[in-house]
Amino acid sequence: MKFCSECANPVALTIPEGDNRPRYVCTQCATIHYQNPKLVIGSIPVWEKEGKLQVLLCKRAIEPRYGYWTLPAGFMENNETTAAAAQRETEEEAGANIELGGLFTLLNVAQVHQVHLFYLASLRDLEFAPGVESLDVQLFEEHEIPWDELAFPTIRLTLELFFADRVKMREGAKGYGFHSRDIVRPMRSNESG
Amino acid sequence: MKFCSECANPVALTIPEGDNRPRYVCTQCATIHYQNPKLVIGSIPVWEKEGKLQVLLCKRAIEPRYGYWTLPAGFMENNETTAAAAQRETEEEAGANIELGGLFTLLNVAQVHQVHLFYLASLRDLEFAPGVESLDVQLFEEHEIPWDELAFPTIRLTLELFFADRVKMREGAKGYGFHSRDIVRPMRSNESG
Repeated sequence: MKFCSECANPVALTIPEGDNRPRYVCTQCATIHYQNPKLVIGSIPVWEKEGKLQVLLCKRAIEPRYGYWTLPAGFMENNETTAAAAQRETEEEAGANIELGGLFTLLNVAQVHQVHLFYLASLRDLEFAPGVESLDVQLFEEHEIPWDELAFPTIRLTLELFFADRVKMREGAKGYGFHSRDIVRPMRSNESG
Repeated sequence: MKFCSECANPVALTIPEGDNRPRYVCTQCATIHYQNPKLVIGSIPVWEKEGKLQVLLCKRAIEPRYGYWTLPAGFMENNETTAAAAQRETEEEAGANIELGGLFTLLNVAQVHQVHLFYLASLRDLEFAPGVESLDVQLFEEHEIPWDELAFPTIRLTLELFFADRVKMREGAKGYGFHSRDIVRPMRSNESG
């Protein structure tokens, strides 16, 4: 940020009176331009039939991490709810019709100023297809998941927690849990989320 | 937003190629200025002793809703986690030392582009004091809560859900739940969160 979006004069990084951290403040009109973390929201779309469970993944057609696999997810938009964002991203990226379940993971990625949320989801049918941001959309059983070709640490962690909960459910747990974690490993320079 | 924060030329509200909603786009350098919802994060600081439970509330010293009571909460900052934000806001607004618990509510306030998160919390001691954004900080038993003087719908709903969970726990529930809700009533023009 170099210029004020209200009056076009230069901004300076200073600590406003009564504040305790540097903000971009307009040198002319004094508008303070706050910068805050963004929400990235997605779903874990599942197809379960005759004892076989598959998860829907999308192969990214955009940077960062072009060609790597991801759960459908993206930035939350103004004027929508977190659940609506999960539903929209799943429709846009995977062309999938889902019934959304509960919130499954909340993952802090503080070093890139993001919070990722993933919702449980059931596919209503098999009529999915790649959207403009996906090269491919495929169903994977647990042993087929391309663990070494996943786009982001939050995708890997959400899938790991998902299959761990499935084990607990086979051992008697009533349902999926809700999991909150912080991603602390440095991300690669070509990763944004 | 009127001007590009990168080059100071005017922005126009248009739908970028490959997108499906209007964004502020620079008429000169073509930078797209996305606007996304913000996270407001707080805690429910509780003091529990000899069967008596009290919740810590802050009386707001700032607009919007000057003079109304709130749980300590505020905008999440870059470079921090959601839990760190809850801890920081509780320290800043109530001067309180807390042990943070699990996430209790996730509340969508789509009409003002906000998502509110409230964490469970236990006061470590009674050494709290109003910060610069608070006129007063007080402990309230359930029957003392100033329900008609609460600052925001998300505060009321979080407190209602909290005391409802306490009832369930007296009836045998193992602990607090996690609650996700959408706030749909129109907010007053002087409310921002």
